[in-house]
Amino acid sequence: MSYTFANRTKGLRSSAIRDLLKLTEMSHMLSLAGGLPTPDSFPLTDLRREADRLLCEYGPRVVQYSATDGVVELRQWIAEHYALELGRPVAVDGQIMVTHGSQQALDLLAKVLVDPGDVVVSESPAYLGAVQAFELFEPRFEVIPGDEHGMQVDVLADKLAAGLRPKLIYVVPNFHNPSGATMSLPRRRQLAALADKYDLLVVEDDPYGAIRFHGDPLPPVASFTERVVYLSTFSKIVAPGFRVGWMIGPPEVMGWVARAKQAADLHTSSFAQLLLANVVSKPGWLDEQKARIVPMYRDRCTALADALDAELGEHITFHRPDGGMFLWTRFDGIPDTTVLLRNAVEEGVAFVPGNAFTIDQLPDSNARFSYSTLAPEQLAEAVHRLTRAVRASL
Amino acid sequence: MSYTFANRTKGLRSSAIRDLLKLTEMSHMLSLAGGLPTPDSFPLTDLRREADRLLCEYGPRVVQYSATDGVVELRQWIAEHYALELGRPVAVDGQIMVTHGSQQALDLLAKVLVDPGDVVVSESPAYLGAVQAFELFEPRFEVIPGDEHGMQVDVLADKLAAGLRPKLIYVVPNFHNPSGATMSLPRRRQLAALADKYDLLVVEDDPYGAIRFHGDPLPPVASFTERVVYLSTFSKIVAPGFRVGWMIGPPEVMGWVARAKQAADLHTSSFAQLLLANVVSKPGWLDEQKARIVPMYRDRCTALADALDAELGEHITFHRPDGGMFLWTRFDGIPDTTVLLRNAVEEGVAFVPGNAFTIDQLPDSNARFSYSTLAPEQLAEAVHRLTRAVRASL
Repeated sequence: MSYTFANRTKGLRSSAIRDLLKLTEMSHMLSLAGGLPTPDSFPLTDLRREADRLLCEYGPRVVQYSATDGVVELRQWIAEHYALELGRPVAVDGQIMVTHGSQQALDLLAKVLVDPGDVVVSESPAYLGAVQAFELFEPRFEVIPGDEHGMQVDVLADKLAAGLRPKLIYVVPNFHNPSGATMSLPRRRQLAALADKYDLLVVEDDPYGAIRFHGDPLPPVASFTERVVYLSTFSKIVAPGFRVGWMIGPPEVMGWVARAKQAADLHTSSFAQLLLANVVSKPGWLDEQKARIVPMYRDRCTALADALDAELGEHITFHRPDGGMFLWTRFDGIPDTTVLLRNAVEEGVAFVPGNAFTIDQLPDSNARFSYSTLAPEQLAEAVHRLTRAVRASL
Repeated sequence: MSYTFANRTKGLRSSAIRDLLKLTEMSHMLSLAGGLPTPDSFPLTDLRREADRLLCEYGPRVVQYSATDGVVELRQWIAEHYALELGRPVAVDGQIMVTHGSQQALDLLAKVLVDPGDVVVSESPAYLGAVQAFELFEPRFEVIPGDEHGMQVDVLADKLAAGLRPKLIYVVPNFHNPSGATMSLPRRRQLAALADKYDLLVVEDDPYGAIRFHGDPLPPVASFTERVVYLSTFSKIVAPGFRVGWMIGPPEVMGWVARAKQAADLHTSSFAQLLLANVVSKPGWLDEQKARIVPMYRDRCTALADALDAELGEHITFHRPDGGMFLWTRFDGIPDTTVLLRNAVEEGVAFVPGNAFTIDQLPDSNARFSYSTLAPEQLAEAVHRLTRAVRASL
């Protein structure tokens, strides 16, 4: 057959992550490639109790169509939670949109904001899912380099001073995927000031913020300016399989998002929203959940980083993240980590080459390692295998 | 603030249905405006039992990330069910995509198929949600009139012979929303033959097919040609609040849809898919559910149609549908049913004016009445109120 596809999809990249996940299904493989939360973190007992209560006591509305912007119980929780986080009131109506995971928030924002040729500012390396969501709407990406303190906002400031006018600025300030970096407080303030000065919109994506190992939480960019659409999700702190995330933003932007959401899927699952709202609204529940799961990720991160230091010290450079699920590395003497990946897969270990997270996808020396789903002893074995692969790649 | 929005969204219509649903929330209002399934139809006991079993016995995978195209248990059910419906094999891999309701299927198809200016063929009146999903991608709509036997495929044949080359042809062959029409068997065959002759893609949207009151089921257009993407959903036959639908189509189209789905939201809720797959896979369950709910809709349809005939006989024309949730009417002597709606709301009854379902939205004499959520005695009272409003509008 000879159907033709929309021109805008011609450049849509195959997902390196998806292709790689096929490899990781091989039973002997130790995968540092995925970004799944550890199954031990899921509160199955609490979910079971609340699911039963919903389907027994709440009546048919839990499985009926519901409002485009989300069920009111969940929007109330979000409004209360973020009034504290952002240090300013968040309205239950008009400022919140519940989405089918954070990924949908990115898709909806791209839809309502990005015309072909519009400039989207992104860090490099960048979250692949965001790049995929944006590129369907044919922006021109303006890449700002990052370091261990997040996007180099000075570089952005120079480009803005020289006339750059982006449609949106995409940042992941906490425990960035893939870089693991946390944007410093001065850079957060500077980014907010630039948004105010040039009347720009920041998209602040924060899926990992609750998973902090060390140090005090930093205030979100959205706490310094209202020119932010702030995104988060239950995927990392409760469970991803329900696909429930949210965004908080200026009413005019959220009004357009609401129409796009209605055209996209009418609304997010009523049942999933009520279930998760009831679980997290229980007084003290979220703090207990964090206290239970943060040490899991912290211990795994330490195990991976210690093993890499011990076995690959001279060949590898990385910064230990303050939270999240990812460790970003640079291999000295390996100009293309896709070559390393091929050797690694033969040894029975997988990771994601750094160029999967760049706009241009040119070969580079970087690699992303996720420590989220392997136990510390498995991480040690994974690094043994990786070390053999590094030797074969030098 | 002065953010600018994507040009393509400039024309995005406000949802007449959504604005109207606000009116119907007034407590005294009898609403014939919505299209919600009746809450009595939801199998809450079965859902509760299976939800509990899933969260108790299946382990963490029920709330973990899952495959882009859907969990395998649900794709297996879909493949088996539609091998019978379509009279040809349906592959579990490569031909099925589980979506966040049928609405998302329309959004994904528009994304991968429609460039600005491409021709989309639609019936008139048309399902508003499809128009909203398509128009975001700036097609040119080519409207083919419908009658009580569905789209007038002869008219389409003439336009194709004259050179029209649509990117897709959108039809709702069973109990159309809003027209209530069922496409006749000869027209289904003719549409399939045209798709084969001109190498065109038909999008066959079938949310209501299982709710048939009278006569034998007709084979889907997809049973006569493979040049069809067939859409259906659990929203009307189980419950809409989980947002689980699916599409079945040619592998090349579905490959592109898979990439768009990944960019849109990664995948549909793992939990919701497993829950619904387990409920409907129980031998005999779906037939029992249909036997329980079809009479509810049949009796309501009869009650509404009888009352309209008895009270408004000379002022109203309509065909009784063979199934579904909607009755489509024409008011003689009322050139603009938005005027009638204003009077009806004053009397305490709501419906949707016909022009909400047209591409051009010009005033017309049509109206859509949904009988799905009111009991027969409420429908009789609604028609009393409507009759007073009609008198005031003539």
